[in-house]
Amino acid sequence: MSDQVKKVVLAYSGGLDTSIILKWLREEYNCEVVTFTADLGQGEELEPARKKAEMFGVKQIFIEDLREEFVRDYVFPMFRANALYEGVYLLGTSIARPLIAKRQIEIAEEVGADAVSHGATGKGNDQVRFELGYYGLKPNVKVIAPWREWKLNSRTALLNFAREHQIPISADKLGGDEPPYSTDANLLHISYEGKALEDPWAKPDEKMFERTVSPQNAPDAITTIEVEFEQGNPVAVNGERLSPATLLAKLNDVAGKNGIGRLDLVENRYVGMKSRGVYETPGGTILSVAHRAMESITLDRNAGHLKDELMPRYAEMIYNGYWWSPERQALQRLIDDTQRTVNGVVRLDLYKGNVTVTGRKSPNSIYSEEHVTFEADTVYNQRDAEGFIKLNALRLRLGFDRDSVK
Amino acid sequence: MSDQVKKVVLAYSGGLDTSIILKWLREEYNCEVVTFTADLGQGEELEPARKKAEMFGVKQIFIEDLREEFVRDYVFPMFRANALYEGVYLLGTSIARPLIAKRQIEIAEEVGADAVSHGATGKGNDQVRFELGYYGLKPNVKVIAPWREWKLNSRTALLNFAREHQIPISADKLGGDEPPYSTDANLLHISYEGKALEDPWAKPDEKMFERTVSPQNAPDAITTIEVEFEQGNPVAVNGERLSPATLLAKLNDVAGKNGIGRLDLVENRYVGMKSRGVYETPGGTILSVAHRAMESITLDRNAGHLKDELMPRYAEMIYNGYWWSPERQALQRLIDDTQRTVNGVVRLDLYKGNVTVTGRKSPNSIYSEEHVTFEADTVYNQRDAEGFIKLNALRLRLGFDRDSVK
Amino acid sequence: MSDQVKKVVLAYSGGLDTSIILKWLREEYNCEVVTFTADLGQGEELEPARKKAEMFGVKQIFIEDLREEFVRDYVFPMFRANALYEGVYLLGTSIARPLIAKRQIEIAEEVGADAVSHGATGKGNDQVRFELGYYGLKPNVKVIAPWREWKLNSRTALLNFAREHQIPISADKLGGDEPPYSTDANLLHISYEGKALEDPWAKPDEKMFERTVSPQNAPDAITTIEVEFEQGNPVAVNGERLSPATLLAKLNDVAGKNGIGRLDLVENRYVGMKSRGVYETPGGTILSVAHRAMESITLDRNAGHLKDELMPRYAEMIYNGYWWSPERQALQRLIDDTQRTVNGVVRLDLYKGNVTVTGRKSPNSIYSEEHVTFEADTVYNQRDAEGFIKLNALRLRLGFDRDSVK
Amino acid sequence: MSDQVKKVVLAYSGGLDTSIILKWLREEYNCEVVTFTADLGQGEELEPARKKAEMFGVKQIFIEDLREEFVRDYVFPMFRANALYEGVYLLGTSIARPLIAKRQIEIAEEVGADAVSHGATGKGNDQVRFELGYYGLKPNVKVIAPWREWKLNSRTALLNFAREHQIPISADKLGGDEPPYSTDANLLHISYEGKALEDPWAKPDEKMFERTVSPQNAPDAITTIEVEFEQGNPVAVNGERLSPATLLAKLNDVAGKNGIGRLDLVENRYVGMKSRGVYETPGGTILSVAHRAMESITLDRNAGHLKDELMPRYAEMIYNGYWWSPERQALQRLIDDTQRTVNGVVRLDLYKGNVTVTGRKSPNSIYSEEHVTFEADTVYNQRDAEGFIKLNALRLRLGFDRDSVK
Repeated sequence: MSDQVKKVVLAYSGGLDTSIILKWLREEYNCEVVTFTADLGQGEELEPARKKAEMFGVKQIFIEDLREEFVRDYVFPMFRANALYEGVYLLGTSIARPLIAKRQIEIAEEVGADAVSHGATGKGNDQVRFELGYYGLKPNVKVIAPWREWKLNSRTALLNFAREHQIPISADKLGGDEPPYSTDANLLHISYEGKALEDPWAKPDEKMFERTVSPQNAPDAITTIEVEFEQGNPVAVNGERLSPATLLAKLNDVAGKNGIGRLDLVENRYVGMKSRGVYETPGGTILSVAHRAMESITLDRNAGHLKDELMPRYAEMIYNGYWWSPERQALQRLIDDTQRTVNGVVRLDLYKGNVTVTGRKSPNSIYSEEHVTFEADTVYNQRDAEGFIKLNALRLRLGFDRDSVK
Repeated sequence: MSDQVKKVVLAYSGGLDTSIILKWLREEYNCEVVTFTADLGQGEELEPARKKAEMFGVKQIFIEDLREEFVRDYVFPMFRANALYEGVYLLGTSIARPLIAKRQIEIAEEVGADAVSHGATGKGNDQVRFELGYYGLKPNVKVIAPWREWKLNSRTALLNFAREHQIPISADKLGGDEPPYSTDANLLHISYEGKALEDPWAKPDEKMFERTVSPQNAPDAITTIEVEFEQGNPVAVNGERLSPATLLAKLNDVAGKNGIGRLDLVENRYVGMKSRGVYETPGGTILSVAHRAMESITLDRNAGHLKDELMPRYAEMIYNGYWWSPERQALQRLIDDTQRTVNGVVRLDLYKGNVTVTGRKSPNSIYSEEHVTFEADTVYNQRDAEGFIKLNALRLRLGFDRDSVK
Repeated sequence: MSDQVKKVVLAYSGGLDTSIILKWLREEYNCEVVTFTADLGQGEELEPARKKAEMFGVKQIFIEDLREEFVRDYVFPMFRANALYEGVYLLGTSIARPLIAKRQIEIAEEVGADAVSHGATGKGNDQVRFELGYYGLKPNVKVIAPWREWKLNSRTALLNFAREHQIPISADKLGGDEPPYSTDANLLHISYEGKALEDPWAKPDEKMFERTVSPQNAPDAITTIEVEFEQGNPVAVNGERLSPATLLAKLNDVAGKNGIGRLDLVENRYVGMKSRGVYETPGGTILSVAHRAMESITLDRNAGHLKDELMPRYAEMIYNGYWWSPERQALQRLIDDTQRTVNGVVRLDLYKGNVTVTGRKSPNSIYSEEHVTFEADTVYNQRDAEGFIKLNALRLRLGFDRDSVK
Repeated sequence: MSDQVKKVVLAYSGGLDTSIILKWLREEYNCEVVTFTADLGQGEELEPARKKAEMFGVKQIFIEDLREEFVRDYVFPMFRANALYEGVYLLGTSIARPLIAKRQIEIAEEVGADAVSHGATGKGNDQVRFELGYYGLKPNVKVIAPWREWKLNSRTALLNFAREHQIPISADKLGGDEPPYSTDANLLHISYEGKALEDPWAKPDEKMFERTVSPQNAPDAITTIEVEFEQGNPVAVNGERLSPATLLAKLNDVAGKNGIGRLDLVENRYVGMKSRGVYETPGGTILSVAHRAMESITLDRNAGHLKDELMPRYAEMIYNGYWWSPERQALQRLIDDTQRTVNGVVRLDLYKGNVTVTGRKSPNSIYSEEHVTFEADTVYNQRDAEGFIKLNALRLRLGFDRDSVK
């Protein structure tokens, strides 16, 4: 376990913090730094990151648009599971980490790097998600987590380090006009946490939100949309077939305009403390509702209930950073096996924060009007219910225990 | 298993169908009928049912206001579990059945009846819920389910039977002005199903809804409320302490005015077919959101996750009619054990169908601003995270298998 | 749902009961009967069944040796899951039913039959397993279960029917020398239930057992064997590669001689009552122990724990007859995904009823002597454990509640 | 988080390692050491530990016989759950740790100590179990784990330290005659691991075992015993009522003589590596088999299946050290709620390693010979099975999908 490092692949955003890390890595480890910057739909230009890296003399600069891969291979599989962490959270941050980790490792192998590094702090979940990904994909990789190692523990120390190393500092960082919370963004969501949000009794400031208008500011008319699914994946909106990333972007747009997808939550971090997060997941919120509705007429009851029972575990795996684990992969097999027939169209009303299912239809529908009808029917024999109830009741009758009726 | 019946306790609503059953039971079984009519908050007067029963010469008539017991001992325990059937349904119909079954059995023992009867059809879940309750509480009771037994299989046959037996028929039943769906109501919800709703692609008619205005017709201003919890149960709204039924009624009122609590769903019945249901659960929707928020700062992570994983099973037990079963009771012990510290206040914004948590506080809060802060802290050692990650990654590293990375 | 039946495929053993059924079907339904007799390793000749069917004038007679398919596609997948019903039962009867049902349905489609029939009674699990298989594979098939329909409810009535219809009756059936219990056999096990075994306090008679000697009568010397696995399936014994059925037969032989595989159990039937069963599963008992041992050095911890948690559900699915269900198939995907690396050899001592693992080795072993050693090592940093414990303890510390320490 | 320690309570065995720790703690922390030595049935005298502590000048020496508390409040609750880790392991080491941790914390509060310490290494599970217990019961306690802190990383360094500090070294430690494995013992079991056992293909030496004869050396005659249960706890053997510890000791004796309770296992440690362990749990093995048999006639099917599904999680909680957690306590509520009727007697044959159930009876039996009988009966209507099957099959029929039949 030598600490000797020759070349490190850094997940580089181009911002102040990862620029400081870039310099610090060189200084501390006397190693070459390769930067990797990905477009996951966070809404920032990538070219400034390239220029900055060039300015710092980085020789190997990787800049990649991973939006389609992100949505197709990470977001959609997760939505096939109806994953919600702690009953409500759509896992927008968690699901981006496995892809970044995977690409870092692939690049490390490509450029012959022996280490990887990231800019996540020592208190959060992201460090775990990155590093479990690294170790799961390349067991002997050296991981450098600067926030856990360095002495730059105050804002002042960081700014001093930046100044000493000719790292440009934008005005807001200097002037104390930093946003009063920390954010993370990708095509699925934006998260806000920390600082002004640390008091869980305080309501977030309306000005904070970036992707959604408030329900109050949304249009006064209903927007009706239709989402089409194939094998559990959304493939078209209002009849227009779209690639995964394009489809999600379109849903983000229409949902955001209608005030849909905000969430204010106190969640349990894997590292042990509770944390308050506020999220905007506009398109994802529509997808979540629509996917369940699509399953409601195409999925077998017991397969669906099995999925429902396993979902919290699956969501926990993703939240905790175990995407690249045997158990997540095995569970995905189970989930995906149920999605073969999840095909059809769901119609939804969007209105001031509400997503309301108003119809669903499918070539694979197993809803049988013939069976459920209140009218006289010929396919269902009501007397069967007597035997069904009698035998289901038998163990209750045999086990009857007056004392237990409480 | 003789079919000889002397006295039967009938769950009697006073409506046409159960009046026909009353007469039919006497005729078919030549037995005495005892009627039981309960107020569970369905919003109908009970006195007409009494008068009708008297008119039919019933000697033992039980009329009871069970609203407080219903909410305290059935609705609240279920909400302590955050129960949702198939991810979304708040189980409003299911949870009323165990109480009715219990009272019927208690009355049967009090009046020396050897049988019980109900007006649920042979296609639905309610027959199962009633009868599993009966058998679970009195194993040798004789159960009579007229809809599965008689020949009155068409509307015409029923009306003819009513006319022959001097049962009054209200105008809407005669004139074909019946509502185009079937409903069930209690203090927790109203359900609509069947007839016009049988096409799952058809949007419900706005005129159908009784307890909620549409989000479009709700006020343009936010209504902010605070709900207080003790041991997982709501005990006050806006600082005013209320009994269980009064509290739920108050929440129904404020939620209904704000367009909250509608749900349109295709669900899986226990008897095997899929069925489309539309529900209004205004107060319950607020409670569901508020209870999770209260837990979010008071409940241990792993206890909460265990609850989440068991919840679908618990909800299924209630949906399928197993309230009076050993497994539901054992699971309730687990759930209730976690609720001791679920105390405090949740603040929510209600606005045109939205229920938004904006704050939560608790004397038992285990949220630690000290630990989570982005500021420098003294209670958390970031270096601990390294060991945490290293050991959690160890099995992934040892088990690394290049072929498995798919 | 017409009861008009033209041609029925009967699961026919050639014994008295299914011969009576054959005749009764023709008489009751005035239909043609096609017989299907399968060799699943029950240890009976098939030719007598053919001759009897010919004697009764059956035109289409299907006689098939399904032993390899049975073991490969039913027994082995189940053992990959380590399936045990109620903690102990290896499901020997349950696992044979899906294959018989499948072949009956295939034959029905081949010969243009509109119905299928079996000889299981109305009290047991087998009727459910057969019929859920039939319906799951051919939804509109007509199922005839004579034991639930006919009036031949006493031994005398059956014998009279046999005499009237020229069905040969063997001496033991006549003379009251029937075995004092009911049995079912296939290559995986023999079961005994009913009659003398109905008192759960009574010890079974040693003379009952057919496939195993008692531990007392087993050899005084240990027999050591090695079982080799590939992808979770046993492929060789003592280095000799064997087909699935041949391998199981060989293990049955060596285990039976060593007094291995008896089980005396009170189990819960799906139809609601408890039932006492005694089983001999000699080879299966070895396989069960050996498979877990093979997994112990090749399977990831969390994948294994996930399997363990889902196993009771999987076993219940098989016991209750849901082999041909979407949920069993989805769960099998999960299970099988974990078995890719379950390769290697397990060494076991067999001795008077005991199966003792004494060694396991694998090309895919993820056991790391280097990590576990008590000697000084270079791969594991003991200090990592501090952070691991600290962060795992954090939620316990923050959530500490003196009142809860009970 | 000051490292200033004034007084520490050490889990002290009296052996060489914990004696070295005692001295090291004083030297390293310049603090007072309080020793705590418990009799959990490990089979060693406690007085030598007292004398040694006195010799080292310890002022507060706690020596306690905790055998009854250990079995009653830790072993029996765990056996009520039928807990098995990874399908086979009876958790003999794991279950002793919570009690030791609890007493250390109680003593710390009694004597005003600010720290606790133990002798477990940094590679194993025991450090986690001790420390999660400490933190769970006294969140701000200082924990000292010498093996993770000191420099005494070789046997030589330890012996040198002992010599320098006048710690007596027994001959076997000096002469290299140490046992070729590490052991842990209490009334429930003895464990062996490490050294000669580190090769998972190597069979353990017969001379290693202390509590059981080998099956080959066990008596040639069957020993029959009866174990009586009340509320899921064993209370008598062969009609003789015994206290918990006495009962377990008696079962250890009779089982050990009959060669019962050995287990050879590769298990997954919580800290991430696989480890080979060999265990002797003679009495526990009988209890495990007997308890399931007792439940088999007294426990409701669905309550039992729910327990079975939750058991692996419960066992994992204990194995990983979460006895003193909210989730274990909540789960215990569920388990214990099912045990109220688990009363009666189980009869077992013990013979050369085998534990065979031969009978079970109970005043609370819900086994109904009347229902299960092969004879004609009056309590069960076989026709009920038709409706039961038809409705259970309905979703399979409606959901039939030819492509899915694989």
